[in-house]
Amino acid sequence: MERKKSDDFDDQVDQPQGKVLVEAAFRNSHVPPWTKQITVRAMVTSFILSIVFNFIVCKLNLTTGVIPSLNVAAGLLGFAVLKAYTTILTKVGLLKQPFTRQENCVIQTCVVASSGIAFSSGTASYVLGMSGFVASQGHETNTPLNVKDPHIGWMMGFLFCVSFLGLFSIMPLRKVMIMKYRLTYPSGTATAYLINSFHTPKGAKLAKKQVAVLFKSFCFSFVWAFFQWFYTAADGCGFSSFPTFGLQAHAQRFYFDFSSTYVGVGMICPYLVNISLLVGAILSWGIMWPLIEKQKGVWYSTDIPASSLHGIQGYRVFIAIAMMLGDGLYHVVYMLILTSCSLCCTPKTKEIDFDSSPPPSVNPSSIEAGEEVLNPNYDEERRIAFFLKDQIPNWLAFGGYVVLAVIAIIVVPLCIFPQLKWYHILTAYMIAPVLAFCNAYGTGLTDWSLASNYGKFAIMIFSAWVGYAKGGVVAGLAACGVMMSVVSTASDLMQDFKTGFLTLSSPRSMFFSQVLGTAMGCVMSPLVFWFFFYKAYRLGDPSGPYPAPYAQMYRGMALLGVEGVSSLPKNCVTLAASFFAAAIALNLLAELLKRYETKYNVYKFIPIPMCMAIPFYLGSYFAIDMCVGSLILFLWRRKNKQKADDFAPAVASGLICGDSMWGIPAAILSLSGVKPPICMKFLSASANAKVEKLLSGP
Amino acid sequence: MERKKSDDFDDQVDQPQGKVLVEAAFRNSHVPPWTKQITVRAMVTSFILSIVFNFIVCKLNLTTGVIPSLNVAAGLLGFAVLKAYTTILTKVGLLKQPFTRQENCVIQTCVVASSGIAFSSGTASYVLGMSGFVASQGHETNTPLNVKDPHIGWMMGFLFCVSFLGLFSIMPLRKVMIMKYRLTYPSGTATAYLINSFHTPKGAKLAKKQVAVLFKSFCFSFVWAFFQWFYTAADGCGFSSFPTFGLQAHAQRFYFDFSSTYVGVGMICPYLVNISLLVGAILSWGIMWPLIEKQKGVWYSTDIPASSLHGIQGYRVFIAIAMMLGDGLYHVVYMLILTSCSLCCTPKTKEIDFDSSPPPSVNPSSIEAGEEVLNPNYDEERRIAFFLKDQIPNWLAFGGYVVLAVIAIIVVPLCIFPQLKWYHILTAYMIAPVLAFCNAYGTGLTDWSLASNYGKFAIMIFSAWVGYAKGGVVAGLAACGVMMSVVSTASDLMQDFKTGFLTLSSPRSMFFSQVLGTAMGCVMSPLVFWFFFYKAYRLGDPSGPYPAPYAQMYRGMALLGVEGVSSLPKNCVTLAASFFAAAIALNLLAELLKRYETKYNVYKFIPIPMCMAIPFYLGSYFAIDMCVGSLILFLWRRKNKQKADDFAPAVASGLICGDSMWGIPAAILSLSGVKPPICMKFLSASANAKVEKLLSGP
Repeated sequence: MERKKSDDFDDQVDQPQGKVLVEAAFRNSHVPPWTKQITVRAMVTSFILSIVFNFIVCKLNLTTGVIPSLNVAAGLLGFAVLKAYTTILTKVGLLKQPFTRQENCVIQTCVVASSGIAFSSGTASYVLGMSGFVASQGHETNTPLNVKDPHIGWMMGFLFCVSFLGLFSIMPLRKVMIMKYRLTYPSGTATAYLINSFHTPKGAKLAKKQVAVLFKSFCFSFVWAFFQWFYTAADGCGFSSFPTFGLQAHAQRFYFDFSSTYVGVGMICPYLVNISLLVGAILSWGIMWPLIEKQKGVWYSTDIPASSLHGIQGYRVFIAIAMMLGDGLYHVVYMLILTSCSLCCTPKTKEIDFDSSPPPSVNPSSIEAGEEVLNPNYDEERRIAFFLKDQIPNWLAFGGYVVLAVIAIIVVPLCIFPQLKWYHILTAYMIAPVLAFCNAYGTGLTDWSLASNYGKFAIMIFSAWVGYAKGGVVAGLAACGVMMSVVSTASDLMQDFKTGFLTLSSPRSMFFSQVLGTAMGCVMSPLVFWFFFYKAYRLGDPSGPYPAPYAQMYRGMALLGVEGVSSLPKNCVTLAASFFAAAIALNLLAELLKRYETKYNVYKFIPIPMCMAIPFYLGSYFAIDMCVGSLILFLWRRKNKQKADDFAPAVASGLICGDSMWGIPAAILSLSGVKPPICMKFLSASANAKVEKLLSGP
Repeated sequence: MERKKSDDFDDQVDQPQGKVLVEAAFRNSHVPPWTKQITVRAMVTSFILSIVFNFIVCKLNLTTGVIPSLNVAAGLLGFAVLKAYTTILTKVGLLKQPFTRQENCVIQTCVVASSGIAFSSGTASYVLGMSGFVASQGHETNTPLNVKDPHIGWMMGFLFCVSFLGLFSIMPLRKVMIMKYRLTYPSGTATAYLINSFHTPKGAKLAKKQVAVLFKSFCFSFVWAFFQWFYTAADGCGFSSFPTFGLQAHAQRFYFDFSSTYVGVGMICPYLVNISLLVGAILSWGIMWPLIEKQKGVWYSTDIPASSLHGIQGYRVFIAIAMMLGDGLYHVVYMLILTSCSLCCTPKTKEIDFDSSPPPSVNPSSIEAGEEVLNPNYDEERRIAFFLKDQIPNWLAFGGYVVLAVIAIIVVPLCIFPQLKWYHILTAYMIAPVLAFCNAYGTGLTDWSLASNYGKFAIMIFSAWVGYAKGGVVAGLAACGVMMSVVSTASDLMQDFKTGFLTLSSPRSMFFSQVLGTAMGCVMSPLVFWFFFYKAYRLGDPSGPYPAPYAQMYRGMALLGVEGVSSLPKNCVTLAASFFAAAIALNLLAELLKRYETKYNVYKFIPIPMCMAIPFYLGSYFAIDMCVGSLILFLWRRKNKQKADDFAPAVASGLICGDSMWGIPAAILSLSGVKPPICMKFLSASANAKVEKLLSGP
């Protein structure tokens, strides 16, 4: 816990927050109070963008299932719309309130929240997985209890019941996550840099230079992504399947995939995070999975598809989750102990300073007045001051959570899913905050939100618990919905808090904007799904225009789940338990080393279990991208530390934002049926010989 | 003529020669007299390396026909061998004469000359094309007069008759080419930089920095070439077939082929050269060839193979040659006029100063003594002084040429090829110097030696002249041998003069080293071919280990040639004549503009016909590489002119040398049968669908 704050993070993350003095450029800009940050024009803009984004996400969900990260696009488009509007108003002399970066940030938060629901509403995964049409494609017989066709009514109700919970579950931890752990949330940081750069006041020299660097790297990244697009005519084509270390390594997911997003993320994340990812990747894909695959036929059956949780995929998912849970639980318990200690003992320790009111040394109003003598921590102090200015009381969070939970416990079993009983929902809501914390923490470290992974975990638990006879399939899928909503909105919220922190937006405006965005999403997502797709097409038909590949997959998992834990492959539970314990042990080891071994600071080199676990499931390609980012930063800093510290965050943000921004035109191209013209393919020499024969043939 | 010297070349090439002061670092190093530059140890080393290189070249000739550029490898290996030898001698205290860069340059020249013969001896092209086995594979009947089986005896004799002519034909022009036109010879320049960097004395700071940059870029280029290798499992695989601008453009040879050699060459060549190449490429592959291809079936038959000179390839080859001849002839005539003018008029003009003794202002011995005050032209002056120190009298060149020609005119028709009459040889030797000049001039501008192109030209002319009945096939192939030998040794020699110029090696030592190397090649090349290949394998068998693809192709051309000029596709001769005239007109235009339009210096933007013609035949990929090199240099100079001027030649040399050096391990891998494991392939979306089906099938 501590170690993340004071040491490895100081190495790197301090610079973007401390010494670059982004805020110095803004010191004469007025920061409006939070009630003025959420403006009507911002909400109208958000509403329009939300519709567009909901449509895009919903359609992508039903076709490929690959959703681009939308933070950047939301920030950029929000800026474009409002800037155009305010410029026109200025010209005709009617502008009353200037357009601020806080307002920009509010739009971004709202749009991301709303389109986030389009993803976590599971229209293409768990909801469609319940439908009779998808069920009829499987080989099993389906009892009526295990089928539930989508309908706009219950979908909207369900979403309203479960989507707000995530916001309340994690909100009280914002100070710990943002200020104490100083989690990076690379996408959030990049978006903040982008928004800041849009609004940089004239005359700030270094800031202007940074903006120039950011836009260069943005353009490079955008053009690069655009260029890559041409070579991806089909799956397995293009730079993202470049077997950089050979075909053998590529089969084990060891390759550099030329994604500028993850190179940028790697430049923002501390070295230890990237190294931990790589260690985890080598441990899992390099050693464990090949060993387990050798037991094919012994530990698990040979005739199951690769994506089945009964086979190798089961080990991947469950061991990864066990390790994340271990790490997450350790931190939750550790925090609880520290907090209770500090509450018992009168002299408050430094640990929970953040939970009290802002320290007297940092006074927002005095900063507001505009001192000219800037200390090197000026940015950091100013950000903390604004972040602590508008408090959201903890009782509101707890109260909100309890009230929403009670509503859900009553409404969901009674009105929507009779397959689930009240105690199921209660249990889910007792586990959810821990999972939400785990996911928000992991996202903060590595930018990977594994919400769908936690959803799969919920499917397995609840399907098994309810059982096939009592409608375990639908129950599992519904529980998946609950869990995914909580977990993904929680990490979205924390990411937006980070963006808000870096743009001096009030946490209150972030929170309310998120609430409004969520509400928009809860209405829009089912509407779009219902009227534009479900009524118009036969969804989930593998040969149709909307195959919705995940619907079948999620139902498949639930069908496995109802068979219970015993249906998991051999030794899976044992291994998962060991890794759960190992995650806790690693944390304890680091903590002990930190306290008692102060000479060599060995604890700095203990990998972070949360980071190690992510590639267990995904493979190591992004870990390699991120290590490349680290390497670039390392070399740059060795060559010119000052320059690297000043410009690396801008370069990294540009890389992330450019690549993400390309996601929008790419999605539009994909939706309008434009296919890239070329496939860059990598064949073994023998396969190539066959292909040559085919192509030269008549 | 003038314009190449004083303006565009000044822009760029002056820097490596003038301001960087490479020679300043060497000012305290002794330059041995030319007789001490050609040492016994250098000759022994050359001899050993020649054997190795002859073997490699001969085998590559017979398999793929792709020969790497060997200058760099020869320079580097020569250095390694002699450095090891002298280091050992120094350790035991027996070293009498230190190892100098001039000696290094002598080895390089000798090895390149010798392995150059392995290429121009045509063992895999024209000689094998005469053989009965290759002849029997065609559909035509073959009279005995049109077949001549290879034999070591006549091959060696023929080589001795024709190989030395090239050296004498072009030697008198060395001062014009190197000092007046300041041709770049990018490979020669790069090799010189490499050799200089090996021998840079300790304590020279800037020079050391340049060496460091050169080695970094060398390593990058080598590693990059190595990396590329893995993806080239077959033809059409790998980065060299990357359709950077789409598949359509790739089919018209417009793509960036990621070759660091040509990016480096582009950085050394003047902007105008690169732009001229690109203009030529667009004119030919972008406009003319597609237009001509539309006439397929009208202008030429549809059922001929793509490589036949009767089809589109005929237009490419003959128009390119016509344009080069036009440019070459213009310069020859212009030079003759100027020289005769200057001989008639008593006050010698500045134009032919170089042909007189060294100007009094530059005295090698005074420089030798070591002045400490260096002017910015120090390098240039010192190089000129040494280049002019050891003269080779023109009467030797002319006399040598005449004597050798007489020998060949007597020996070749009487003893070797009765199909050729004395007047054929005489004619060939009257055209040869012009072609040799054209090729040496083109190589100097762009690094592309098109010797085989001139060889093809000779096949067409002489086959048609002799006629089928009188053995025109063998006559044409033999004439090709004569022409290729003259043309390629001439450009090799001039390139070595450039390397010698930049390393202060005496032209005499270069010339004699070239003569010795040529002699070695004339002995070794037939020996290696005869004993290791011809006696051991059935060469030219398409399904055997040595398909020798060019043998069949060259014979095919001769078979077409005997049908005469009328067999060329329609309008080919007309078009070729127009381009011949256009080349002359362009030169005249530039000259006139230079004289009478001094305001905007428009003449600086008139493209060079020689450069325009090269992509006519080859396609534009290398022109694009070279323009990328120009672009890099341009941006670098705009950012930091001083740094770019100091380090660009080093970077460019490193890029060229690293890529070339990889040629050696690549050749060894290829010869030992190691194939790259992966094919990076580029398929259209529709082809990819077929391939996917094939690969996923049973």
